[in-house]
Amino acid sequence: MDRDGLKRILNQALREDVGRGDLTLAFTQDKKVAAQIKVKQSGILAGCDEVLQLFKQHQIKCENHFKDGDKIKKNDVVFELNGLSHNILLLERTVLNILSVMSGIATVTQKFVDKAGKTKVAATRKTHPLLRLLEKKAVFIGGGLTHRMGLDDMVIIKDNHLKLFENITCAVDAAKEDPYHKIEVEVTSKEQAFEAAIAGADIIMLDNMTPAKIKGVIKLLEKEGVRGNVLLEASGGITLDNLKDYAKSGVDIISTSALTMAPGVDFSLKFL
Amino acid sequence: MDRDGLKRILNQALREDVGRGDLTLAFTQDKKVAAQIKVKQSGILAGCDEVLQLFKQHQIKCENHFKDGDKIKKNDVVFELNGLSHNILLLERTVLNILSVMSGIATVTQKFVDKAGKTKVAATRKTHPLLRLLEKKAVFIGGGLTHRMGLDDMVIIKDNHLKLFENITCAVDAAKEDPYHKIEVEVTSKEQAFEAAIAGADIIMLDNMTPAKIKGVIKLLEKEGVRGNVLLEASGGITLDNLKDYAKSGVDIISTSALTMAPGVDFSLKFL
Amino acid sequence: MDRDGLKRILNQALREDVGRGDLTLAFTQDKKVAAQIKVKQSGILAGCDEVLQLFKQHQIKCENHFKDGDKIKKNDVVFELNGLSHNILLLERTVLNILSVMSGIATVTQKFVDKAGKTKVAATRKTHPLLRLLEKKAVFIGGGLTHRMGLDDMVIIKDNHLKLFENITCAVDAAKEDPYHKIEVEVTSKEQAFEAAIAGADIIMLDNMTPAKIKGVIKLLEKEGVRGNVLLEASGGITLDNLKDYAKSGVDIISTSALTMAPGVDFSLKFL
Amino acid sequence: MDRDGLKRILNQALREDVGRGDLTLAFTQDKKVAAQIKVKQSGILAGCDEVLQLFKQHQIKCENHFKDGDKIKKNDVVFELNGLSHNILLLERTVLNILSVMSGIATVTQKFVDKAGKTKVAATRKTHPLLRLLEKKAVFIGGGLTHRMGLDDMVIIKDNHLKLFENITCAVDAAKEDPYHKIEVEVTSKEQAFEAAIAGADIIMLDNMTPAKIKGVIKLLEKEGVRGNVLLEASGGITLDNLKDYAKSGVDIISTSALTMAPGVDFSLKFL
Amino acid sequence: MDRDGLKRILNQALREDVGRGDLTLAFTQDKKVAAQIKVKQSGILAGCDEVLQLFKQHQIKCENHFKDGDKIKKNDVVFELNGLSHNILLLERTVLNILSVMSGIATVTQKFVDKAGKTKVAATRKTHPLLRLLEKKAVFIGGGLTHRMGLDDMVIIKDNHLKLFENITCAVDAAKEDPYHKIEVEVTSKEQAFEAAIAGADIIMLDNMTPAKIKGVIKLLEKEGVRGNVLLEASGGITLDNLKDYAKSGVDIISTSALTMAPGVDFSLKFL
Amino acid sequence: MDRDGLKRILNQALREDVGRGDLTLAFTQDKKVAAQIKVKQSGILAGCDEVLQLFKQHQIKCENHFKDGDKIKKNDVVFELNGLSHNILLLERTVLNILSVMSGIATVTQKFVDKAGKTKVAATRKTHPLLRLLEKKAVFIGGGLTHRMGLDDMVIIKDNHLKLFENITCAVDAAKEDPYHKIEVEVTSKEQAFEAAIAGADIIMLDNMTPAKIKGVIKLLEKEGVRGNVLLEASGGITLDNLKDYAKSGVDIISTSALTMAPGVDFSLKFL
Repeated sequence: MDRDGLKRILNQALREDVGRGDLTLAFTQDKKVAAQIKVKQSGILAGCDEVLQLFKQHQIKCENHFKDGDKIKKNDVVFELNGLSHNILLLERTVLNILSVMSGIATVTQKFVDKAGKTKVAATRKTHPLLRLLEKKAVFIGGGLTHRMGLDDMVIIKDNHLKLFENITCAVDAAKEDPYHKIEVEVTSKEQAFEAAIAGADIIMLDNMTPAKIKGVIKLLEKEGVRGNVLLEASGGITLDNLKDYAKSGVDIISTSALTMAPGVDFSLKFL
Repeated sequence: MDRDGLKRILNQALREDVGRGDLTLAFTQDKKVAAQIKVKQSGILAGCDEVLQLFKQHQIKCENHFKDGDKIKKNDVVFELNGLSHNILLLERTVLNILSVMSGIATVTQKFVDKAGKTKVAATRKTHPLLRLLEKKAVFIGGGLTHRMGLDDMVIIKDNHLKLFENITCAVDAAKEDPYHKIEVEVTSKEQAFEAAIAGADIIMLDNMTPAKIKGVIKLLEKEGVRGNVLLEASGGITLDNLKDYAKSGVDIISTSALTMAPGVDFSLKFL
Repeated sequence: MDRDGLKRILNQALREDVGRGDLTLAFTQDKKVAAQIKVKQSGILAGCDEVLQLFKQHQIKCENHFKDGDKIKKNDVVFELNGLSHNILLLERTVLNILSVMSGIATVTQKFVDKAGKTKVAATRKTHPLLRLLEKKAVFIGGGLTHRMGLDDMVIIKDNHLKLFENITCAVDAAKEDPYHKIEVEVTSKEQAFEAAIAGADIIMLDNMTPAKIKGVIKLLEKEGVRGNVLLEASGGITLDNLKDYAKSGVDIISTSALTMAPGVDFSLKFL
Repeated sequence: MDRDGLKRILNQALREDVGRGDLTLAFTQDKKVAAQIKVKQSGILAGCDEVLQLFKQHQIKCENHFKDGDKIKKNDVVFELNGLSHNILLLERTVLNILSVMSGIATVTQKFVDKAGKTKVAATRKTHPLLRLLEKKAVFIGGGLTHRMGLDDMVIIKDNHLKLFENITCAVDAAKEDPYHKIEVEVTSKEQAFEAAIAGADIIMLDNMTPAKIKGVIKLLEKEGVRGNVLLEASGGITLDNLKDYAKSGVDIISTSALTMAPGVDFSLKFL
Repeated sequence: MDRDGLKRILNQALREDVGRGDLTLAFTQDKKVAAQIKVKQSGILAGCDEVLQLFKQHQIKCENHFKDGDKIKKNDVVFELNGLSHNILLLERTVLNILSVMSGIATVTQKFVDKAGKTKVAATRKTHPLLRLLEKKAVFIGGGLTHRMGLDDMVIIKDNHLKLFENITCAVDAAKEDPYHKIEVEVTSKEQAFEAAIAGADIIMLDNMTPAKIKGVIKLLEKEGVRGNVLLEASGGITLDNLKDYAKSGVDIISTSALTMAPGVDFSLKFL
Repeated sequence: MDRDGLKRILNQALREDVGRGDLTLAFTQDKKVAAQIKVKQSGILAGCDEVLQLFKQHQIKCENHFKDGDKIKKNDVVFELNGLSHNILLLERTVLNILSVMSGIATVTQKFVDKAGKTKVAATRKTHPLLRLLEKKAVFIGGGLTHRMGLDDMVIIKDNHLKLFENITCAVDAAKEDPYHKIEVEVTSKEQAFEAAIAGADIIMLDNMTPAKIKGVIKLLEKEGVRGNVLLEASGGITLDNLKDYAKSGVDIISTSALTMAPGVDFSLKFL
């Protein structure tokens, strides 16, 4: 994201919390203070860039003892702050919410990535409205693939699209007019997967298939000599519990909304 | 929220997904279609207003079989759509994400509310950045209190603020200069709670206290004859599992970020 | 107001005046100059923060000999400026207009406050469109209460609302579901005032009552032993001329749109 | 102003008042109502277009019995409304504030225009920040000239500019390079006025001169045979009280900030 | 582009022209009129959607006798309008400028496409700032490929990037970590082209090569058996005059900024 | 243009190119680099201010060897840059496009100005949508007149306006009510030109007249003794080829859209 874009999102977040001005600060003396941001549970840190930028914009000196992607554990002092108390209190909740959401996603992503071994793990477009860039960035920090950022980012032909075409082959042929974007096709059977591979899809999304069914697809593609032409992506109902089975099925990529819908990691800010 | 404000948030969400335009639709024939949005798990519906407004803005006829706050169960057809396929596909993911996030929050809120009995349940400001209005609205739909919408919405004197004052009494006295807003004080001991009650706080937030400790606070306030002057709000570490104990402690309100950090409810959109 | 919000309003004001660029400067040599901003009549200064921020954004050094809330008198040099002539001329009118409007309000407010004695003086929502935050801030600088910032800032039940309820009691009962905001009720008779007090209103607005009628209300509330439960706010037709009578009536707060509709205080900017 | 621009200003005004949503409406039943907007004092109506557009955007039927520029007198029913009570209450204050500010300006402008006879009356750039377009429009409705809308609207060479040039003649010569804009020069003596006229200024602003001094300027220009080449604009310290004397001095235009700094005209909105 | 995005660009264009309001219309009677938009030279029409949307937003009935992509010739009546004269005059220049720019691009694009035969023709990112979406859309309407919409749209490794890597192979290997985007490499020699093909680039951009040099590249790739693995794109210094030679060289795609830097097609709007 | 306005346009241009972030940089090492921007053809430089501001905002040190309005020739090093490679690559295309468009316009403008001798050369409102301010600024840098910036910038009565009036005299009389703006009338015959001159137009636009026809107009105006009262502007179909004939016709100003529709000047950015 361009800097100006990030700055606008951060300021929108701050404005959302501050509204017409902090009522509690209105009658409170301002003074120079030192403060710490601690993490209250273990995880992977994400949101550092965002938080540092917010503090800098508001004249708060911020030293970060960790950086995006670092492991952090309960009670680690992640940031040390120096500045005017009012400025710090104005940013407190916005900063903690950004850290919580982004670190939550990075933490869960890393768990998926570790467990998936050499199979890649990718996010989906099931993100919180308005937060896609921040959430996908957290996935990246956690070691996952960000996948499609939006409808303009690659071609994915899904079940609803197929109802507008005669068949997969026609759809892929039409898409191939544009040589600059990869083409992914969502399929629900091995026959569809085979048709997509023959038609020239770059990636085939195996939608809501069991690991066993996925193995059947792979066997067919190998038999027909087209396995090497395509990447296979498993999607739908994949959790940390069943992840290993999917990874062992032989797919290249596992995509799941569990990454961006991850629970937050708790942080707190205390004046010293 | 004013209509123009809601419209801007919805359009920002849509723009985030559509970007420079849907690449898959670029080579796809448009036609008139009928479609259904089904829910894939049970819960409380929220996000209806938002979704209906988005569809209306894009010339899609949308009939809703349920309304905000209604119970919905797996496979219920929540909306029936009629319109051009391209318009529907352009909105699909944005609409499903809004429904998922908001219904997830309403669903969890209602579980807390049901279990808390006559004790009220409130959200906190731990919301996803940029989504506070939508998330608090979902809490309201689920039967919870929205609590403070932002720093400008009432006075809450927390531990960090107290480091800027001699004591609670001074802080409350200063705050009382403004007769138009309620004053809440966050405390960690029964002595602080008593001081806050005497000083004239409207609400006392009992921060990270066990139900047993809360009972001690209440006993002291009753003994001193000031229990009736204040509302007591328990906050910190309260989950569905320990909620009953907190409710039985005698507090008036339980506030928790579990409401706005709720997992999503899954919906799907299919052409007929 | 958050800084980013203030910055946007100031830049919007500047843009309004500058438009596509200053035509007079297009053919004028730029040079380093010193300049002074003088006030042309006595009053209370407001708008300092805003003006200092605008100058800073445009690389103009600005020394302020007075600060917000200070008394200033005719011909006082309020600011001394050093910078490029074009930058100063570009800001001149915008800066003078902000000072004029805000100081005008602070000046009138202080007159009301001085005359009202221990009765508090508050603004209303009759402000110039788009300027509410700046105008309410000027009221605060002048020593007044800002009152409700907008419809989301507290509950006020007015005559039009009451037409949607059976009676005041029902309306207040409904409002009390939300424990986080104060409830004010607008009344036009002592009977209504009594009903509101009994129902649990925090503040009662005595709308367009004479001082004599207000005394009647107070006598009734005292007789019934509920005077101490509520704050009384007189509103409607109160001017500097009749202010003393209202203050002596025994109300707690006097609110008037005369503050935010105050005439401006004149300032001028001259190159040395 | 283009429609989109007006719409944005109106919505910004509405958003300023509504904020995160009307708290009082949150617990109030909505129903279809009829309502009236009455004026509480005599004046000239302005703001009709703006108010009609706001009501239309919010599905409120609005019949206007008067139009911009019409005389209205105390208790006239200016608008009759039909719609949902919540929609009307949401807009109430914003609409009344727009009517009050704009009608106040139109009313005062018309008084000046009536009294000035055949001398034209013009506004200045001393307007409320962000409201220049609305305020200048109200001046126009009241029969006044809007004068320069901003720094990009014509060339005005003032005292501070002259400090950057050798003399008036040099400044006007430089300005004349651009044949598409009129050139006005601010002067404080008859010698300066004569120099400006000879140099080719289109309009000469006689700054803070008494009517007597203005007559001296005119006599000189007539004697030198250049009176017909320029328009003369008197500015500075002109009020309704001394207006006649200025009008009789022989100037072509009188400009004053009294128009845009006019007090408001009061309106009220009542449900029937 | 999403509708809301297009609407914002069109309104920004209109606002740019209208500014604070049309001065000429201020004293002009409004009436219902019929008008025509004629084209003054032959070409391919583009901009229809945009113009129809602008007219619709401003209550002007617009019948279009041609649609995007249609051939139009001198004096063809392209649109017939009915509406209020003021509305039409307010939009006139904005509408004509959009038609001129977009049709100019579509017209030149089609000339390139016609002449290039089966070789594809693509635009570049050399577009007018702020107009990329409209200009690329016009290229598409003229039959060209839009190529990369921005830096986020695919991976292109250019000479400056290569200075940050050991060699092409390293750069392509790094890029291949992301399986969802195509990889293009810019090369200036047949050796580089071969390295890129072996490394796994999807597309190779032959930068500023003569048709003869391009043939040498193709011969090498064929000899090495990797011609079928990559698409070849010629770029740099290609005009309508030398286009045929490039097309005959055997490349798959020719990209040129001549499309988006095309001269405009003239249109005029006349009241009947 | 005010600084904030320029900053917003530049950032909008950058955002358009960067979108959700540069995909190629995502896997590329960042390092400190030196780079040069060279021009690939001769011309007049424009866009310096814009480019310097963009580099400054992104922490890139930029030394400029030329300034706006300077002659530059093929291979001149115009800017030398030092900074982080990622920052430079992020800005590269946006910066080059701004330089190309603005320098192209300045270059062509200067050719017209040189050839027109003492006749002035002016732009029109046929500009690229959204780029009017940048394009008119480039015209100014090239030595041309910017003419009307928008519909609010002066009064021009054109053929379509005249259909709403009885005759030119009526239209000019109505326009003269506003003494602050110049009045231009577009005419197509010498009779109309004479009527406009008598009516008091400041400037007469001779629309699509041949040089011979223009001479006829001038002869008539001279004979009637009104040539000195008006400026004459020739417009329509004027190119570099026929410019001399128009200049010799005796008009004061030649206006043409050829300035703002000029082809770009090519620049390139290379790491050293």
